[in-house]
Parts: sequence; C-alpha cells; structure tokens
Amino acid sequence: MTTSIKQADRDVAGGLAEEAVERCVALANHSETSIGLTRTYLSEPMKSVHRDVGAWMREAGMEVRVDAVGNIIGHYSADRPDAKKVMIGSHLDTVHNAGMYDGILGVVIGIEAIKSLNGARLPFAVEIVGFSEEEGVRFSSPFLGSTAIAGTFDDSLLARTDAQGRTLSQAIGDFGLNVDDIGKCVCPAGELLAYLEPHIEQGPVLETENNSLGIVSAIAGQTRMLVTFSGEAGHAGTVPMRTRIDALPAACELALYVERYGRCITDLFATVGQMTVEPNVSNVIPNLVRLSIDIRHPDDETRRVAVTQILMHANSIAERRKARFAIENRSDRGAVAMNQGISDVLKKAMQGEELPAPELVSGAGHDAMIMAHIAPTAMLFVRCKGGVSHHPDESVSIPDVADAIRVTAGFLKTFSTSTKG
Amino acid sequence: MTTSIKQADRDVAGGLAEEAVERCVALANHSETSIGLTRTYLSEPMKSVHRDVGAWMREAGMEVRVDAVGNIIGHYSADRPDAKKVMIGSHLDTVHNAGMYDGILGVVIGIEAIKSLNGARLPFAVEIVGFSEEEGVRFSSPFLGSTAIAGTFDDSLLARTDAQGRTLSQAIGDFGLNVDDIGKCVCPAGELLAYLEPHIEQGPVLETENNSLGIVSAIAGQTRMLVTFSGEAGHAGTVPMRTRIDALPAACELALYVERYGRCITDLFATVGQMTVEPNVSNVIPNLVRLSIDIRHPDDETRRVAVTQILMHANSIAERRKARFAIENRSDRGAVAMNQGISDVLKKAMQGEELPAPELVSGAGHDAMIMAHIAPTAMLFVRCKGGVSHHPDESVSIPDVADAIRVTAGFLKTFSTSTKG
Repeated sequence: MTTSIKQADRDVAGGLAEEAVERCVALANHSETSIGLTRTYLSEPMKSVHRDVGAWMREAGMEVRVDAVGNIIGHYSADRPDAKKVMIGSHLDTVHNAGMYDGILGVVIGIEAIKSLNGARLPFAVEIVGFSEEEGVRFSSPFLGSTAIAGTFDDSLLARTDAQGRTLSQAIGDFGLNVDDIGKCVCPAGELLAYLEPHIEQGPVLETENNSLGIVSAIAGQTRMLVTFSGEAGHAGTVPMRTRIDALPAACELALYVERYGRCITDLFATVGQMTVEPNVSNVIPNLVRLSIDIRHPDDETRRVAVTQILMHANSIAERRKARFAIENRSDRGAVAMNQGISDVLKKAMQGEELPAPELVSGAGHDAMIMAHIAPTAMLFVRCKGGVSHHPDESVSIPDVADAIRVTAGFLKTFSTSTKG
Repeated sequence: MTTSIKQADRDVAGGLAEEAVERCVALANHSETSIGLTRTYLSEPMKSVHRDVGAWMREAGMEVRVDAVGNIIGHYSADRPDAKKVMIGSHLDTVHNAGMYDGILGVVIGIEAIKSLNGARLPFAVEIVGFSEEEGVRFSSPFLGSTAIAGTFDDSLLARTDAQGRTLSQAIGDFGLNVDDIGKCVCPAGELLAYLEPHIEQGPVLETENNSLGIVSAIAGQTRMLVTFSGEAGHAGTVPMRTRIDALPAACELALYVERYGRCITDLFATVGQMTVEPNVSNVIPNLVRLSIDIRHPDDETRRVAVTQILMHANSIAERRKARFAIENRSDRGAVAMNQGISDVLKKAMQGEELPAPELVSGAGHDAMIMAHIAPTAMLFVRCKGGVSHHPDESVSIPDVADAIRVTAGFLKTFSTSTKG
C-alpha cells in the first residue's frame, strides 16, 4: 500500500517535473537578446516572466504581489490566521548568455511543490519568491532582491547607473514600481520560520557521486582582487631579453601559482578569470597586465592564509623581475553556514524519499547568504549536467527535478510536523 | 689645419643637428590626435608634413615631387647629365602615440646632409625619400611606400579598408593622388646605385656600449603567430580544481616558455605581446586564450628551430592539460643582410669622422628590407635614449644627430670617390 502511494506520488512528481522543465524552457524565451538568454534586473522581458510566473502561482492557489524592487511573491495561506511563514525561492534574473535553470529552476520547483499539495494547507503560510536580482549584471551589484527583503538593501546604490546611464532608481520607476516603497519589501523580524532555496549545483560533485540532490552545508567565503604588474614597454625586436621588464610573464607566473595553490589545498577554489594586457600589441613588450584573482573556501581562515600566500608570492615575483605589483581592488566575503536545524528537516525529507542526503559546500554565492541574516536557511542542490552553468548548455534531468519537487514538498510537510509538535 | 677644418665641420654639423631635432619636434605637431603623436598613412596631417619637408628640401637645393602612393622625394641633381642616383630615406608615418624620431629623423638627417654640401654636386644624383607608409597601422600592411618604389607593391591591397571603411584606393584619391599612377612610382632597375637609411636604433645596444652610431649588418628574420588554447568554461566557485580545463594557465605556461627560450639563445628575441582571454570574467574559468608570439633572429635556421621547439612545447602543454591548441595565423619573413660594399663605404665615412663603427643586428623591420631588393643597401643606426621607441619618450641627443649628419654627408663623399675611382 505504502509502495503504491509512493509510486503515485512519483508519477505526480514526474508530471510536475516535466512541467517544471517546460516552464524553465518557456521563460528562456523572455530574453533581452534575440539569440541566447540574457535577462538582467527589471529588463523589459522580466515583465513577461512576471506574467507567466504570476499565472502559475495563482493556478497553484497563491495570491501574487510584486514588491518595490521587483521581487514577485506568491503567498499560499496557512490553515490558520496570523500564522508565520516559510519562504522558498531563488532568482529570476540571469547572466549574459545564460542557461535556463540557474535561479529560475528554484522558483519553478517551489511553485510545483505547492501545486503538489493539492490545496492542502499547512500550519504556516508558504511564500514562493522569485527574486528580481541576484547576478549583479545590470548595476554591478548582486542580491538587490534579497537584500530588500532582508532589510539590508544599500540605498546608496539607487544613484548607480547601468550601461545605458539609467539609475537604479529610474529603472525601478521605468518598471512601474515605486522606489519610495523599498522599505515595505522588508520581511518583519520573527515572521519568517525558514527559508529554503532549491538551486542547480553549478558544479559536478553530485554528478560525479551519482546523487540527484544534495544539502548545502555552507556557502564558501570569497576574496576577489584585481591586481596589476607594471613593467616597461619596449620594441619586441630590439630590447634584449635580459634587460626587459615584461609585465606579462610576471602575471603568468602568478596565474600559475594561483592554480598550483588551489590544487594543493582541499576545497580551495582559486581562479584567474580575467587578464588584460597593455598595450596588447604583438610587437610591443607589455608594460601593464591586470588580472583578477578569485579565492573561495568554506573556512575563512584557510581562505585568508591562501590570499596572504598568493600576495606574498606576487610581491616576490615583482621583486625578482624588477616589476611593480599593486592590488587595485579587493573584496572579502565571509563564509555563510546554513542552519543545522532546517538542514536536518531537509535531510529527513530526503530520507523519506529514500534518497541519500550528501552534504556539499557551495562555491557560488546565493540569495540564501542574504536570507540567512533573517531566517534559519537551508539550500537544496539539484544535479546539473557536467556541472555546466552560466552557459546555454546548462541542463537538468526530469527525474532529478521530480526528486527536488517531492523533497521540497516533503520539507514543508516534515517542517509542518515539527512545527505542530 | 686638418683639425681646425674638422672643428668647423663639427660646428656646422652641430647647428644642422640642432635644426634637425627642431624639425622632428615641429613635425610632431602634425598629428591626428590633439594629445600625443599619431600620424598614419595619408592622414590629413601628412599634408602639413609634406608642406614642411618639401620646403626644407627646396631650401637645401632639391626639386620636390610626391608620387602616387604619397612618398615625398627631394631630387638633388648630379654634376653631370644622365647620372645614376643614391637614395637616402626613411618613413614619415608613425604608430599610435608615437615618438618624434622613429622614421622622421632619417628623412631630416638626409636633408641636413644635402644642406651641408652647400650646393656642391656629386657624380650621382641624390634623392631624399620620405616614405609615406612603413608602420602598417592604417591598412594593417606595412611598407606601402617602399614597395611602390621597389616595384613589389601588392595591388590586391587597394581594396583593403581602414577602420573607417575607406579603401586604400579611396585613401589615395582622398589625398589628391592618382591610384592609376602607382606603376610610375617604381625606380627603374639599374638606376639606383645605393640606398642608405639612417634610423634611430629603437634598442639599447649603442647606448650600453657608448657609441653614437652603428652599422646594421642584417635585419633579423621574424615569425609572427597568433595561437590559441581552448579549454572548458565553468564557474570559478564550483568546478573543482582537478577537473578544470582552464585555457589561461596553459597559455601562461607557453608565455613563460617563450621568454625562457628567448633568454637562452643568443640574439633571439621572443615576445608574447598580446594575450586575450575569453570570456574574461573574474568568476568564470577561461575557455579560450589567444596569444601572439613574435620570434626574431638574424639567422633564419635558428629562428625556425626556435619556432618549432615553441610549437612542440605548446602541443605538450595542451596534451598534458587536455586542452586544445591551434595556430591561427603565422607569417614568416627571412632575415635580410645589408650590402657589404655599401656598409664598407659607411664604415669608411665613420672612420673618417674618428667614430667607431660597431655592427649590430636590427630586430625591427625597416624600409631598407624592401629597398635591398633593388639596390645595394646599408643602414645607419643612431643611438636613442634608453632604447625607448614607439613611445612619446623616444629621444636622441644633438651630438649624436650631428655625428649622423656628418657621417651621412661623408658617406656620399666617400661613395662619390669610390664611384669616380
């Protein structure tokens, strides 16, 4: 009997998962570009996304509102008045030339999980949030949506301009929203019982270990730096090799050290993603090279040591080569641990579905980092093909999405039991 | 007596050298940019240059013409009819944000040397040429001026467009010249006895060895390549270090090998001047890096071996890193030896001025490479400060320029004796 109920559940979830993936594919049509998917904060195609997502929320029994920074929120009311709430969400904006699932899948999974309740009410309200902004593309500042809800929105950003010279404040007005209402986005302290964010892994760990889902233990801390080596420009055919102060080999040595360091320390991610050369002419010895260094680790101390070692090595390269080294820009973000209690609820839900519940660290930042300030927070990672993300090849499987929908619904039911109890 | 004549010569040459440097500074005002010097092929400011240079040529006793590709030529007639001629020249165009002496100084020295003859005629005509194009900036093809005179002008270039979409053919018309007359630029075979090019060294060898002037023994051969490493893009925070195929460290390894190889082989110049990274975003593992490799050596075989070794190493890097390596573009130019007989005449002229006559290789290309096809050719290098060139800091000293003017005039006199004899 239990088995056949499980089977029925699975069939339902399978249908919902198919619908979820179809919905992600449909939303990918709402793009700023004719080829590929690019949908930045409050861009025109976000209106069509709100129309579709809003319709799906209503169909699942939710009331829909859009707040002053453009978050779309579906409210599924509780079985009682004055109940607190659980939020499930992720973001609806994308990077340039994005995949169809990063962010979007989490919102759609939330809606399908509510739909799977078939109208059954819980002792708390559930709100499905489609955050308006997480990637930081349009205004070079991420988490505009979640910081507004968490009450940590930085008002000084309102004057910042996008590539077209529109301020964030104007962009909010252009979308038909009222910038004066940003304060009203805040979720009052104590009203939120938990926040859960389903999201594609964006890495290959689940795939490698053959798991459909995983529980995020922590979001890694991150240091970003832009550093430069300066040397002396000169003619590639006349300045003898021995007297050159070439900025490029200096930068190359550092890039290789960053990679080597990253390979030696467990769970460290160390990346040089950007390198720009000046004057970048084939017959001129480069006099300036600027490179980005991105260091992430779940343990803040390990990350700090890595950064220090890398900078020391950079200085020694510069000294040996008589070049100059400078740090142009540095930002540090501490690691954020997920909430143990809420993660345990998620684990129970996974075990209830007879799924293993592996833990893994998220190297990427997520709205969950912001929401962890105001609510006990957990993240559910969904396996993605080849670990590929931020790319049109981003892909998920329907059975994995079905697992995620069942676990998300299971999380609500399990949490409801623990809340009642 | 001899000493006092020498002293008088020196005073005259000193005055001419001061004037020569003033003239280089004056020509630097004719720029396409309001700050710095940029004067590409047949650009508007080249008209003012022709006006000034033409006036100086006439003042020194020359008849002036501008040919169909925009070379300005001052003809100083011989002491007899139907005489053959000697050409002295260099180029009047510049790179972006150029110095004031590269090319220009050679033309001005030629004019001052004629002026120092005080109207005395030689058994051959002398033509001072200001080549219209050597740097290859406007149409990405160098030596447009000298190839027209040498009869090796590539007509297929006429359809090539500049950054503004004007064809080379249109640019010639825009400047008031007739593209149909390009054939008339050619200097008939046998009419030219010798070509001499005075030019700043653009390197630090003369300065290091404390010589004002040097004789170029050969212009180094050169191989240019654009090569790429391709890997797999991925999220900098999620793709484990061990599974990455990062194109950037692969390229960095090669750039360091190019530098190391260059340092090990005498007279080899090996430079990576360009490196472009895709997508060049700080949090994305680079999937493509394109780099330029510039290899020069006076011995063609040594250069070919260097190129082969570097490409073999590139392939081994790619193989070890599971990346792909490709050569996108490759051009090879053999070394060009200067003419021994004409260089000996130059050497005699230097010895006559009690100057040492050190020989050195030119790592940079020059119009002399092209002119060597139609005439016995020599090059006279003038020391420049710090070896700096292709840069606003390019600088020469007046005593060095005085040496160069006396040696150039002395070259004509010595050659005249050897021609008579």
